Amino acid sequence: MFNKKLTENLEKSSMIRAMFEEGARLKKIYGEDNVYDFSLGNPEVEPPAEVLETLKKYVNSDEPGLHKYMNNAGYPEVRAKVAAYLQKKCGIALDESNIVMVCGAAAGLNVTLKALLNPGEEVIVLAPFFVEYGTYIEQAGGKPVIVNTIKDSFQIDVEAVEKAITDMTKAIIINSPNNPTGTIYSKESLEKLNKALEKKEAELGINIFIISDEPYVSLVYDGAEVPNILSIFKKSISINSFSKSLALPGERIGYIATSSRIPGVDELFSVMVTLNRTLGFVNAPSLFQKVIADNLDVAVDIDNYKMKRDMLYNHLTKVGFKCVKPQGAFYLFVKAPIEDDVAFCKAAAKYNLLLVPGTGFCGPGYVRIAYCVDKGMIERSLDAFTKLAIEFGLN
Amino acid sequence: MFNKKLTENLEKSSMIRAMFEEGARLKKIYGEDNVYDFSLGNPEVEPPAEVLETLKKYVNSDEPGLHKYMNNAGYPEVRAKVAAYLQKKCGIALDESNIVMVCGAAAGLNVTLKALLNPGEEVIVLAPFFVEYGTYIEQAGGKPVIVNTIKDSFQIDVEAVEKAITDMTKAIIINSPNNPTGTIYSKESLEKLNKALEKKEAELGINIFIISDEPYVSLVYDGAEVPNILSIFKKSISINSFSKSLALPGERIGYIATSSRIPGVDELFSVMVTLNRTLGFVNAPSLFQKVIADNLDVAVDIDNYKMKRDMLYNHLTKVGFKCVKPQGAFYLFVKAPIEDDVAFCKAAAKYNLLLVPGTGFCGPGYVRIAYCVDKGMIERSLDAFTKLAIEFGLN
Repeated sequence: MFNKKLTENLEKSSMIRAMFEEGARLKKIYGEDNVYDFSLGNPEVEPPAEVLETLKKYVNSDEPGLHKYMNNAGYPEVRAKVAAYLQKKCGIALDESNIVMVCGAAAGLNVTLKALLNPGEEVIVLAPFFVEYGTYIEQAGGKPVIVNTIKDSFQIDVEAVEKAITDMTKAIIINSPNNPTGTIYSKESLEKLNKALEKKEAELGINIFIISDEPYVSLVYDGAEVPNILSIFKKSISINSFSKSLALPGERIGYIATSSRIPGVDELFSVMVTLNRTLGFVNAPSLFQKVIADNLDVAVDIDNYKMKRDMLYNHLTKVGFKCVKPQGAFYLFVKAPIEDDVAFCKAAAKYNLLLVPGTGFCGPGYVRIAYCVDKGMIERSLDAFTKLAIEFGLN
Repeated sequence: MFNKKLTENLEKSSMIRAMFEEGARLKKIYGEDNVYDFSLGNPEVEPPAEVLETLKKYVNSDEPGLHKYMNNAGYPEVRAKVAAYLQKKCGIALDESNIVMVCGAAAGLNVTLKALLNPGEEVIVLAPFFVEYGTYIEQAGGKPVIVNTIKDSFQIDVEAVEKAITDMTKAIIINSPNNPTGTIYSKESLEKLNKALEKKEAELGINIFIISDEPYVSLVYDGAEVPNILSIFKKSISINSFSKSLALPGERIGYIATSSRIPGVDELFSVMVTLNRTLGFVNAPSLFQKVIADNLDVAVDIDNYKMKRDMLYNHLTKVGFKCVKPQGAFYLFVKAPIEDDVAFCKAAAKYNLLLVPGTGFCGPGYVRIAYCVDKGMIERSLDAFTKLAIEFGLN
């Protein structure tokens, strides 16, 4: 009666839904405080004070026109500010014609993929990855091609990427700092990838775009640097949102930045702006365009996330779990002590620990722990992790 | 290099772009005040005072959690308020499980069409219509089938709709009050359509949904009533936005309401919520969900629009133009005195009048005048309309 494929998918996704329902059930029995929900990447922190002040300033100003339509690409002055900010970071000339304001990174990815892909063209994704990339690619008429990162380090396996490239390859999605692993792809691996792509492009007579999904780019620890994708790759598109960096996930605000080094980039811009309209986004929310433009240099309190990372990472490794120390984002990707990560998550739920199986990120054998949660909850959860380690003979 | 079809479409759309560029050129030469731009449905009015007060209340409250993720369907309490409001209007039992909050009506239409359509299924649209419906249908894998309304009255031609129905028909899009004609489809015609659909459904063993795009439902004049679609049609889906009724077009806020009389409506809801996420909308902007929920009974000043409608309608008919008096929305659909509406728009531009050819709405031989503009501009434009009428021998 409805879309058949989607209705069937709904039935297939019942395992994950069952897990969410199990969480709701546990919370009902034991109380919210006694269930340790690490399943969602929903920042617990409030937006930085500067952001809330800017919002108040605009809303209390009674300035006319704050809530109107503007060009589907976004306010020109907002786009000019974003361009200037990015140009300083990447050293590539950018102006407002390189920026499309969008309703968050998910919108940006859908617009970008649809703008690039012809039917059947392939997009390489590096596993583990945010699994909805696959859906976005298929919605744009493309075909996802999954390439694993290097075992345990989660760094790019450039040789494997090279082998996966065909004459139908159109793009690679990069997400660094990475969800779910917290890994930052190293500068060396990105430069090596760039060389490999240039070689393959010449060999096959194709164009390969780098689509960089960067919501965590300002959430990094211990002075780590995230290599700038626009600097390294000529045909690169950087997509960002303020969901994590300014803790505004509900407001759906972000941007697409197209490198001025893409041949015919003006045409790409026009296609993207048209798609922003026809895909139904129309424009990024008007008030928050203005708010973020005044706060491009602002970020949530990184030390707060670092404290939480350290608390969990130190405890988990102490009781015997294995995990790469995340350099950014707010996820730990922990090796499950048994092969079946879904079974391991079920075992964790017995201790009221809600984790997400790595299988959900094409990273089987691991579980994702989102630590963008209340500090008190992390403290209360530590005992449960110890008991879980004991059950699996780690401690 | 990019999506081939979209790049080609870009070239095709150059006529409309040329017209916009002509407008910009005229404004540069003659000054903003001396060009009469009736081309865009961008409300000139500010949101009602109640809406701005509610916005201030939330923003100044320092209430935590205003900008976070929520269920992809939207805040449950917001959906419950929308459901209660609609139930009072339509008399059909509705609750929060019938409501999906979306990023405006364009988002709602994309989600709904994708949720309903299997590849190749047909959607009937009643011409003249907002031309992007066709793009939305194609993006969802469907095929638009255009059926003309009755000549001059723009009411539904039920016999023509009946003839257009095949075993692949899945839905009909209704937009009343209509963009571009301002017509409200009569209760009799809708009830007649309902009977015809039920007959055809039984005959062909199919399900036909009514998708009602209702952004102008509260913008009606002279005490006119808009027949309630959820009351009349069993398999109906009402899509609304607050872009026009609360003058919030830039904020992208609206909802989908699915009738509880749709068999399997819970499954439809789940598919829609999933699509809201995967199509990249994720959720309707969080702050404005709360704002509109407190202002469901509020609307912009209708008398202001009525005054503008009357000013233009009276003058245009006085100088010899032919036009159905619009009962709602903020558009006049005026018969062009020559067959070629594009040529007529070019002639109008000589008098600094920017109009949109009806061809752009599958309504050739007419032009659309959007009167959601400054009163002063309308006053200043009247002479230009007189001169245009004289040029075409109407006066």
